[in-house]
Formats: sequence, structure tokens, C-alpha cells
Amino acid sequence: MNLDPESDLARQVAAVMLSRDAMSRSLGIAVVEVRPGYARVEMQIQPEMLNSHAICHGGVIFTFADSAFAFACNSHNRSTVASSASIDFISPAQLGEKIIAEATERTLTGRLGFYDVQVTESSGRLVALFRGRSYRISGESLGPIAGSDSK
Amino acid sequence: MNLDPESDLARQVAAVMLSRDAMSRSLGIAVVEVRPGYARVEMQIQPEMLNSHAICHGGVIFTFADSAFAFACNSHNRSTVASSASIDFISPAQLGEKIIAEATERTLTGRLGFYDVQVTESSGRLVALFRGRSYRISGESLGPIAGSDSK
Amino acid sequence: MNLDPESDLARQVAAVMLSRDAMSRSLGIAVVEVRPGYARVEMQIQPEMLNSHAICHGGVIFTFADSAFAFACNSHNRSTVASSASIDFISPAQLGEKIIAEATERTLTGRLGFYDVQVTESSGRLVALFRGRSYRISGESLGPIAGSDSK
Amino acid sequence: MNLDPESDLARQVAAVMLSRDAMSRSLGIAVVEVRPGYARVEMQIQPEMLNSHAICHGGVIFTFADSAFAFACNSHNRSTVASSASIDFISPAQLGEKIIAEATERTLTGRLGFYDVQVTESSGRLVALFRGRSYRISGESLGPIAGSDSK
Repeated sequence: MNLDPESDLARQVAAVMLSRDAMSRSLGIAVVEVRPGYARVEMQIQPEMLNSHAICHGGVIFTFADSAFAFACNSHNRSTVASSASIDFISPAQLGEKIIAEATERTLTGRLGFYDVQVTESSGRLVALFRGRSYRISGESLGPIAGSDSK
Repeated sequence: MNLDPESDLARQVAAVMLSRDAMSRSLGIAVVEVRPGYARVEMQIQPEMLNSHAICHGGVIFTFADSAFAFACNSHNRSTVASSASIDFISPAQLGEKIIAEATERTLTGRLGFYDVQVTESSGRLVALFRGRSYRISGESLGPIAGSDSK
Repeated sequence: MNLDPESDLARQVAAVMLSRDAMSRSLGIAVVEVRPGYARVEMQIQPEMLNSHAICHGGVIFTFADSAFAFACNSHNRSTVASSASIDFISPAQLGEKIIAEATERTLTGRLGFYDVQVTESSGRLVALFRGRSYRISGESLGPIAGSDSK
Repeated sequence: MNLDPESDLARQVAAVMLSRDAMSRSLGIAVVEVRPGYARVEMQIQPEMLNSHAICHGGVIFTFADSAFAFACNSHNRSTVASSASIDFISPAQLGEKIIAEATERTLTGRLGFYDVQVTESSGRLVALFRGRSYRISGESLGPIAGSDSK
């Protein structure tokens, strides 16, 4: 029995996007929850993610937040791309830590959407603040590969 | 004979940072030129960098631009971290394309620096615009691992 | 009887800053609430704030959000300046509408602070999202005029 | 004889926009040059633009940069609105100084445009860096008031 078809669709889109995204899979990003306008993902900091500071690379944190953003803005199964994003690095993520990114749709009007992503370490420490702007293109997120996800 | 000791130092810092940065090396980022307040890097789009669109992942483009930023803002051999960045995705990068990131210091006053990074495909097509804000911490970029680079 | 000396100080700083800020006063910005790391201000859209769209000028919305940011980041009575900000324009503000800006400190570590400001119309409609980055300089916000506030 | 009809149109749009924009006129913003994808404006810092620092208010600098952006992104006479912007405050503008904002179109693809605005003091000192993102709506910039300009 399907009690929440919209969230089912959102989960289906995220699963297909992840299966087609080698980068996100190689980082070990796991989708914890996804529903219309929302996504929550997790990842553990691995040795190969460290930079010369011996802390997690800023590009990895961005990629992680960006994945949550992509799942949230494609959750309506309308093909949507990122047009811009900004990130504030608050505290470094350390080797072995589990980090969580939670993406929330702030508004979606016409083709333009605005999303906030908060990255925290599992105990609640703030790691980064990310804001993404999306632009809806034609097609469905569950469509064929070209034009099928947020990037 | 050492004709430009400041650029020599900037190159040395970049080489050490790259040697300690597993992520940038795994992407195949090559440092083409680096001098005080400036860095130019190159990379070729590999299959594992693609997303479900079959174009280069936005997180990879960010990581690439961020590397150029890190080399430029550490070029004075003063330990410097990124505090925030924004990126505009202009055109997708395709499999096999070579992309170039050129980071320029716009201003450096006290502890705060502002850098522009332009990402282009090798024929000149604009791929992304990145702006990074840096914050100088204590220590030298060529110092021991903890606190030694921009992330 | 002074039950909350920190909030008293924050209110005192905001009052002094507003008294010295001709621009904010000419826009009719009113401080509704201020406490450590938080500020809430209100303003009504006047005819002279309209642009050729006959809606409120984006620069006015920015200035309004920026004031809330300035009160929040100076609420600790440590002289603090804005180093950068970004704004997303969500829905236009119309003539006669009352708008509210609520600034919240997301983090304050060493000299750097990050603040979120949400601008809404009085019925709750989202008008703009603003994120400000602050940098603490020497001196107190309640000190003499030069260097005494966030701008 | 009309040697450059496109620049003539861009100038005409800017003149109409300015005539309908009370805020920009009250700041004394003057349009120096405008052509397709480009605008240059000037303004002198007046006493009423100062904040409690006795330097020009950040909101005034934003409004000034935003005007240059609006003229540049409406220069093609297609109604265009700002969807987001970011600003970096580099050096303060002082009472009596003349400042210049120069807006350049970095790219315009479909409905989305990206513009860089550089604000300098007349001797060349960098005051602020602004990046604006535009979204084209229906109608012409020279059309009737509602929907006729960038804000």
C-alpha cells in the first residue's frame, strides 16, 4: 500500500541519480531520507578525502552538500540543474567523522529554486553552510541519461 | 641563478601542498603556473567525474577551482584557509575535455584575501566563475602538516 | 532591576548605531528586538523606495537586511565589520507593505562570524534570504565614532 | 546618422529606468556609459550616505553596484530581474569621494545572465566586488512600468 506516493517518487529519483553518479558513490554518500523538497545524506571522512592540513578537503565538503541539494531539487521529478551555489566553511571535518547534509527547499517559483544545506558532524557541530540556486530545464529526472539530474 | 625568488617560493608551496592532497592528485590536477597571488591549473575530464547527466559533476568543478584558489592564496607562504566561496556554473564540462582554472588575487589586506577563479575549457569556453575568500592563520604553508595549506 | 545585562548591552549598541546611521534612519528602520547574536527590525515600503517596476528596490531590501546583520554582529559590543554578503531575491515587496528582517548568528569563531537574515512580509511571505560574513576589528561598538559599528 | 543602434537602445533603456527609479536618483547616480552587456555609473559620497563609522554605508555601495548591474542586464531591452547577488567589501568609501561602478556581462544563456561589477574610487582603489545573477522575464525594458526593469 502506497501511503505517500510523492515521497516514493522522490526516493526513486534519488536512487536513480545516485546509481548514475560515480563521484557521489566513490565518496560513499548514503541517502538517508528524501521527500519533496528535502534530502538528508550521510558520509564518513576517509583518508583519501584529506588535504595537506590532514582535514577533509573543502571540495569534498562542497560535493557532499551539493549532492543533498541535487536530491532535494530533483525530488519533484522535474529535471533541475544547479546554476550557482555558495558555501561557508565553519569548522573542519576530521578523519573518521560521520557528517550529515540536510537540504531544505526555501522556495520554488517557476523555474527557479533556492535551497539551504546545512552540514553537521554527527554530534551536531556545524561544519558548513551551503546555499544552492536551481534552474528547471525540460524533461523528467527519471528520464534517459542526458539531462536526467542536477548537474 | 635565482631570478625570481618569490615565484620560486610560490611554486615550492604549491608542490608541497599538492603532494599532501590526495583528492587533488586523484583528480589529476596539474599545476601549470604559480607566482605570488596567482595560480593556473589544468585537468582532464575523466569518466569517473561524470554525473547522471553524463557531464562533469559540479563538485569536481568546484574542487578544481578551489585548488587553484588554494595555491594562489598560499603563494606567499603564509598559512591561509578558505572561509567561504561561491561558484556560478556557466556551461557543462564534457568527457575528455581539458579544463583550466586561473586564480587571481583581487586583494589581500591584513588577514583577509579575495580571489577570482575563472574555469574555462581549453578552447576558451567559460565553464564556471568562482570567488573565494581566504583567512590567514598562523604558521607557514611550507610548515609541518597540520595547518599547512588552504583547507 | 537588570535581569538580562547582555541583552541590555545589545539594545544599547543598536540604539547608538541607529542614531549614527543616517541611511537606516531615513528608511525608517525600527529595531524591534535585539539580544546577543540576534536582531529583528521592521520597515514599511514607501513610495521613494520603488524602482521602475513599481516594486521595492533591491538595494533597499539589501540595506534593510544589512542593518539587521549589523545590529546582530555588533550585539556583543565588539566592533565588527561586514566583509561580504549574498542575497537571494525571492518575492518583491510592494508599496505599503511592512517587512521584517530577522538576523541570527550561525557561528562566531575568533574574528569571523556568519549570520543568516530572513526578510519576510508581515504575513509571513518570504521576500529575501541574506547571508552575511563579519570580521571583528579592534575597539568597542559603543566607542567613539570612527570604527564604532559594522559598516 | 545612427552608427550604433544597439548602444543607442541600451542608453535609452537606462535613461528610462533611471527616470523611474527614485532611489537611484536620490543617491545621485549618473550613467556614464552603457552599451549591450555593459554599464558604467558614477556617484559621489554624500553626508547622508555615512554610517556610524563615518564611512559610506554598505547598503549604499550595494545599491550603487546593483544599479550598474540593472542597466547592463537590461541593455538588450528584454525585461530582466535580479535573482541573486553577492558583494565583497574591500575598502571603505569616504565622504566626498567619487566612486565608479563598471558592470560587465560574463555570460547570457537563455533566461540566465551572470554579471561582474567592480566598484572603484576614482583614483583606482578597489572598493567592492559584486556578482549579480539575472533572470529574464517576459516583456521589454522600455515597456510600461510594471515589469519594466531589473528590480
